[in-house]
Amino acid sequence: MERIRIDHGSGGEASHELVKALILRRLDNEILHPLDDSAVLDFNPLRLAMTTDSYVVDPIFFPGGDIGSLAVHGTVNDLAMQGARPLYLTLGLILEEGLSVTDLERIVDSVASACREAGVRIVAGDTKVVPKGHLDKIFINTSGVGIIPEGIEVGIHNARPGDMVLINGNIGDHGIAILSQREGLQFKTPILSDSAPLNALVSNILRLHPEVHVLRDPTRGGVATALNEIAQQSRVGLLMYEESLPIDPSVRSACEILGLDPLYVANEGKCLLIAPKDEARQILQSIKKDAYGKNARIIGEVLENHPGKALLRTRIGGTRILPMLTGEQLPRIC
Amino acid sequence: MERIRIDHGSGGEASHELVKALILRRLDNEILHPLDDSAVLDFNPLRLAMTTDSYVVDPIFFPGGDIGSLAVHGTVNDLAMQGARPLYLTLGLILEEGLSVTDLERIVDSVASACREAGVRIVAGDTKVVPKGHLDKIFINTSGVGIIPEGIEVGIHNARPGDMVLINGNIGDHGIAILSQREGLQFKTPILSDSAPLNALVSNILRLHPEVHVLRDPTRGGVATALNEIAQQSRVGLLMYEESLPIDPSVRSACEILGLDPLYVANEGKCLLIAPKDEARQILQSIKKDAYGKNARIIGEVLENHPGKALLRTRIGGTRILPMLTGEQLPRIC
Repeated sequence: MERIRIDHGSGGEASHELVKALILRRLDNEILHPLDDSAVLDFNPLRLAMTTDSYVVDPIFFPGGDIGSLAVHGTVNDLAMQGARPLYLTLGLILEEGLSVTDLERIVDSVASACREAGVRIVAGDTKVVPKGHLDKIFINTSGVGIIPEGIEVGIHNARPGDMVLINGNIGDHGIAILSQREGLQFKTPILSDSAPLNALVSNILRLHPEVHVLRDPTRGGVATALNEIAQQSRVGLLMYEESLPIDPSVRSACEILGLDPLYVANEGKCLLIAPKDEARQILQSIKKDAYGKNARIIGEVLENHPGKALLRTRIGGTRILPMLTGEQLPRIC
Repeated sequence: MERIRIDHGSGGEASHELVKALILRRLDNEILHPLDDSAVLDFNPLRLAMTTDSYVVDPIFFPGGDIGSLAVHGTVNDLAMQGARPLYLTLGLILEEGLSVTDLERIVDSVASACREAGVRIVAGDTKVVPKGHLDKIFINTSGVGIIPEGIEVGIHNARPGDMVLINGNIGDHGIAILSQREGLQFKTPILSDSAPLNALVSNILRLHPEVHVLRDPTRGGVATALNEIAQQSRVGLLMYEESLPIDPSVRSACEILGLDPLYVANEGKCLLIAPKDEARQILQSIKKDAYGKNARIIGEVLENHPGKALLRTRIGGTRILPMLTGEQLPRIC
């Protein structure tokens, strides 16, 4: 490996290799090590979650959102996936000289409105400007902290054989919305990004069902990559049921036309939940009551065998391995 | 204002306008409002400081440091300027496709070694890759949190008439080191960036002299801009003594050749301290004992008149106003 390749940013296999071989090797410590959606910081008696994400999505405005709302939702969700109540975000803007001020106003308005919905505040910021041509329009970093309530112990390591896997709705909307906009594709029903803050949904579920073991948002790399991360860290197998996966028909046909597998397409308002089997139906009912959970489903189960692997039981009854994303489907998807 | 201009990123007057007119207007809240180096978060009984900065410096390797060490020092110092003990940092990397892996390794090594010196840990990270030409090599965001010890009340609002102004060493080294490298200028003695972590120095000073009123690191926009920020927020005048300003002779001649005023050139290991007059000499002695304080000086005083202004008493006895930086001297300086 001599040069950074585009698939080092895919969220899939090459990203994991880069992070482990190059970055974690140099910066490892017990807080960073789990590589979960957020770090857990012990400020006895408080436990805080902390996370960071940079957003480089292209185009910066897309059906269902823009880089501003996405930057809030993504970081709010990374905190929520740790069971935390998101509180404070920072906003780092890197702007290209010549960026339209109207566009910037629209983006900051969108940050503000996403913060209001999620109940978080921007508490610190930084704005850099680089000469024209040194970056494409605008990149945003948001970092965030939140409080982890007492008694909450979700984590990517906690999936247990016999648990069920749930998702709060349709798969692949964000990636296909971005790609349609970028490539000028038209569909009968326009496909909107699912970008949304999931903290209220998660906080309700954890209050009613503290037995949830794992929360994970399947963003870059899609559902299949998130499943692999959970399977590896929890040392279990994860079997998905193809016929149960909720996929919008327009997204399904777009994927067919474009040669994409929706299980590898990015989501920005989805959450995988893993919980004991005897609670799964009740959790499903609770999720469905949330505005962002209408199309929730039980989509799979946790196995003792095949540790570290994600599997798909297909419609026709076979079972195939779902590897982590290899290569890069869609650069600058988030 | 229709388009983002390069001086919107200067750290000076245009940056302040953009932040106030466009960003703060939309995101204002009482924690963000002071626009201090870090936000103060009240997790009763804990007080945490939180900050963020993106680093876009060009060249990425420069005499005395690189974008990796700079990204750690800058964020550590923003926390220290709030009187906080920096603890945890996040690391957001945005990489250009084709970046040399050797360069990235060198940068991450430098992040690691800067973290070790400052006693902080990277606890969360994110790596994005964008297609070649969509960004110049590498940008880094670091955000950080730290604990503010009990009894510490430093802040940009706290300068009081009669106080003295100190600095821990030479002015303008970082900006001139970057510019020399970028423009291929040669000096008899090479000029090194002053990039350094100031948390140990600050923590010692605050332990010995809890009466310090203001701490501020004069980065983008230089000492003159930082003085204006303090003067405005504290509603006092700040009078500097030209003959007391510590400036390396090579930096002084470089500034003369390049037509720059060292008071407007960026520093990355400097701290302005404002404290009561009767403690100033003792504080100066304490600073001089630190490796990053050898050339510390008392450089000015706080006035009751001229509120909101920084002034310079020149060598020949006159007094002139030091406005905030207007325009942009050096894009991508940090």
